[in-house]
Amino acid sequence: MKKLFNFFKKQTYFFLLSAVTTLIVSSATAQMRNNVDSVMIRALYDEVLQSEEMDVNLRYLTAHIGARMTGSEQAKQAVDWLKATMSGYRPDSIYLQPVMVPHWVRGERETASFTTGGSTVKLDLLALGGSIGTSGTLTAQVVEVKSWTELSSLSDEQVRGRIVFFNRAMNAREAETFKAYLAAADQRAQGAIAASKKGAIAALIRSLTLAKDDYPHTGAMSYDTAVKKIPAAALSTNSADKLSAALKKDTALKVSLRISSRQLPDVLSYNIIAELKGASHPEEFITVGAHIDTWDVGEGASDDGTGLVQAMEVLRAFKAIGLKPARTLRVILYMNEEAGAHGGVKYAEQASARNEYHVAAMESDAGGFTPRGFRIEASPEVTAKFREWALLLAPYKAGDIQPQQRGVDLIPMRGMTKALLSLDCDDSRLFYIHHTALDTYDKINPREVAMGAGAMAAMAALLCKYGL
Amino acid sequence: MKKLFNFFKKQTYFFLLSAVTTLIVSSATAQMRNNVDSVMIRALYDEVLQSEEMDVNLRYLTAHIGARMTGSEQAKQAVDWLKATMSGYRPDSIYLQPVMVPHWVRGERETASFTTGGSTVKLDLLALGGSIGTSGTLTAQVVEVKSWTELSSLSDEQVRGRIVFFNRAMNAREAETFKAYLAAADQRAQGAIAASKKGAIAALIRSLTLAKDDYPHTGAMSYDTAVKKIPAAALSTNSADKLSAALKKDTALKVSLRISSRQLPDVLSYNIIAELKGASHPEEFITVGAHIDTWDVGEGASDDGTGLVQAMEVLRAFKAIGLKPARTLRVILYMNEEAGAHGGVKYAEQASARNEYHVAAMESDAGGFTPRGFRIEASPEVTAKFREWALLLAPYKAGDIQPQQRGVDLIPMRGMTKALLSLDCDDSRLFYIHHTALDTYDKINPREVAMGAGAMAAMAALLCKYGL
Repeated sequence: MKKLFNFFKKQTYFFLLSAVTTLIVSSATAQMRNNVDSVMIRALYDEVLQSEEMDVNLRYLTAHIGARMTGSEQAKQAVDWLKATMSGYRPDSIYLQPVMVPHWVRGERETASFTTGGSTVKLDLLALGGSIGTSGTLTAQVVEVKSWTELSSLSDEQVRGRIVFFNRAMNAREAETFKAYLAAADQRAQGAIAASKKGAIAALIRSLTLAKDDYPHTGAMSYDTAVKKIPAAALSTNSADKLSAALKKDTALKVSLRISSRQLPDVLSYNIIAELKGASHPEEFITVGAHIDTWDVGEGASDDGTGLVQAMEVLRAFKAIGLKPARTLRVILYMNEEAGAHGGVKYAEQASARNEYHVAAMESDAGGFTPRGFRIEASPEVTAKFREWALLLAPYKAGDIQPQQRGVDLIPMRGMTKALLSLDCDDSRLFYIHHTALDTYDKINPREVAMGAGAMAAMAALLCKYGL
Repeated sequence: MKKLFNFFKKQTYFFLLSAVTTLIVSSATAQMRNNVDSVMIRALYDEVLQSEEMDVNLRYLTAHIGARMTGSEQAKQAVDWLKATMSGYRPDSIYLQPVMVPHWVRGERETASFTTGGSTVKLDLLALGGSIGTSGTLTAQVVEVKSWTELSSLSDEQVRGRIVFFNRAMNAREAETFKAYLAAADQRAQGAIAASKKGAIAALIRSLTLAKDDYPHTGAMSYDTAVKKIPAAALSTNSADKLSAALKKDTALKVSLRISSRQLPDVLSYNIIAELKGASHPEEFITVGAHIDTWDVGEGASDDGTGLVQAMEVLRAFKAIGLKPARTLRVILYMNEEAGAHGGVKYAEQASARNEYHVAAMESDAGGFTPRGFRIEASPEVTAKFREWALLLAPYKAGDIQPQQRGVDLIPMRGMTKALLSLDCDDSRLFYIHHTALDTYDKINPREVAMGAGAMAAMAALLCKYGL
């Protein structure tokens, strides 16, 4: 009995010892791995934070090319310049991926006004991307609505032949501005369809911003093939408030609207793809991207000039510190995120056709402001992995992991990769300039852009090293 | 035996039951308290995020008063306007607290240049606050140093009769920009003393910024009564780089420097103090503050116009939602933070003389950018309390609690209160504009200011409700 007891005691002892040893060793290994990773991440941040490359690039892009709407001459120039610039960072390969894209043009700058009490009030507006024109000047009464319910409750008679004015403001009480944007963006995306279904002849949308100013915010809109297309434009918030106030006094007032925009035939354009080939798993891809195209106003500094220079910086920083990825790093600069993500769709189609294995796909398209971390679309297990890695980014204040990635160009990759992730940035400033003439270089802070690029490089390095 | 056992069983059962009940009840109470507090905080944020009051105030302050250096006519105007504005929010009392303050004037705008290879290069500079003038133009050779060690290693002979040029750059690798600032600010604060000790006749300091531009950053400097005063000025980083490059080619080059600044006699000025009297503990004070004075360039928008409108907003929001604090809320707008914290010292002296009990003192003076939470100077127990409260601020992304509060006006309150706390803001943008002509309204984002005011109001409300 005693012998047996001793045997068990020994066994237990051995078991405990081995368990403790395993624990110590594995924890020490984890610690060592963390230390090595910390050093790698520190080196990437050091490179990015001390370099002026991104700032020089963003200045060039905004000052010498500026707005670069899909299908435009400037978009072509941007492709050429971005390819040449990234080539300078000596990737293992760089090539253009052809993609047919829509070519919408604004034409003459749009005008709108109403006359009330004998005086004419001009409205500041921008046609929404893809909107048809008005064929001369259209003049009609206006129906203001602040919700879909309000629109539904109107009879077709009340809407027919009129302009529907969608005047639901972004909710300033929502702490996360981006959520307030998403919650109001349905008016811009679906307003023309809903208004047309009830017989309206045009749609005016309150700009998606918390600012009270004279800058209209353009953006994408949808048409439904089953519903008659009608012109649609965004009013600045000041103009929306003026129109709303005037309608309260004079419900019969008429707005005169002139929009010259039109859709031209699709044109050939390109995604730009650069690679650093993986040393041990070249067939596994980690993509880091941003979009080339912009709207036609402003300089496309924040949306998405910052993302472009950050994505290229990841490659440059890898090369500069001599980091040879185990898996293949692919930088993808997409064409036409703004009006249908044709570049994103093309990339996913070809990746699928070639049966390529994508570990993860990342995009930076949140304005280039102070990074907070990443928004991730992945399984709970994979998300847990990112949360572990995020501890390494916490010293740089980029360790926040949130659900619901927001990279539009990544959506076509759903189901083809283990994780989609978008750089998450502070969103306070974005909707003051988003899709407006105010999206210019002077609104950008180079330090914020650099901190974002550091986070992207660090996350890309971990993905390249460990996979998922 | 069985009886005894049953007795114990009963007792145990009773004990367990009572423990569990206590746990449930106390946790339910805590939960209820949290819910009530959440609702209070939501109401404060709702008020602040939907109001245009702060933006209107900041526009007025920057456009109609602008820079308001201690002792200046504009500082007087600011006192009058701030008192009138805050009176409009109907505090229970509002009064001016007299304080004698220094009156330094820049005089004619300073000039500096050097001639090398036949051409003259102008330098962009600003005298540091408190610097003496040069009595005409001073021309001397320059000794460049990048560290205190480097200065120490020079013989007095090498320094005597020369200008010491402190050219240590802020460390871009430091993830937290504010830390990089603090680590480089010793040159500005102590440079003139250290240089004079070795016989230098002037000091030039590289501006404290990560930007590479033509804007010099002024700021406070010290003299030592035991050491001869010499003039000191900050060079823009571009000018510092030019001078450094030129010195490498021509070590004997001479800089001509002209500074007209001088110290006038002290003048009478004021702190502004407004109160909402505590309903149940009126003798316990929670202070919320910011500073009125600025440097003489720019508009004092970020430093500390944002803090002023935020501190006043706390009072306005309390009144607007009908929040009657249990303890007394005191809003203090301090005079002369920038050059000696005379207002802060005066406030602490009088609070001490009156034997007032201060629960906590808060200041907003970190630029008015996106808030992250609070920096707190308190015992570990009190800090733990703040960490618990911070959970209520996390939904507003203001739940980060860090050590080392940074409100200069609060330092005189050390030891007189349980906690000093400063609003902690994202620091990426601050040192691009800090103490320069660039500190203007257009650099400020109203949403960021509002999010900061929400956090301050929420924290002040918790402090007023619970004390410490």
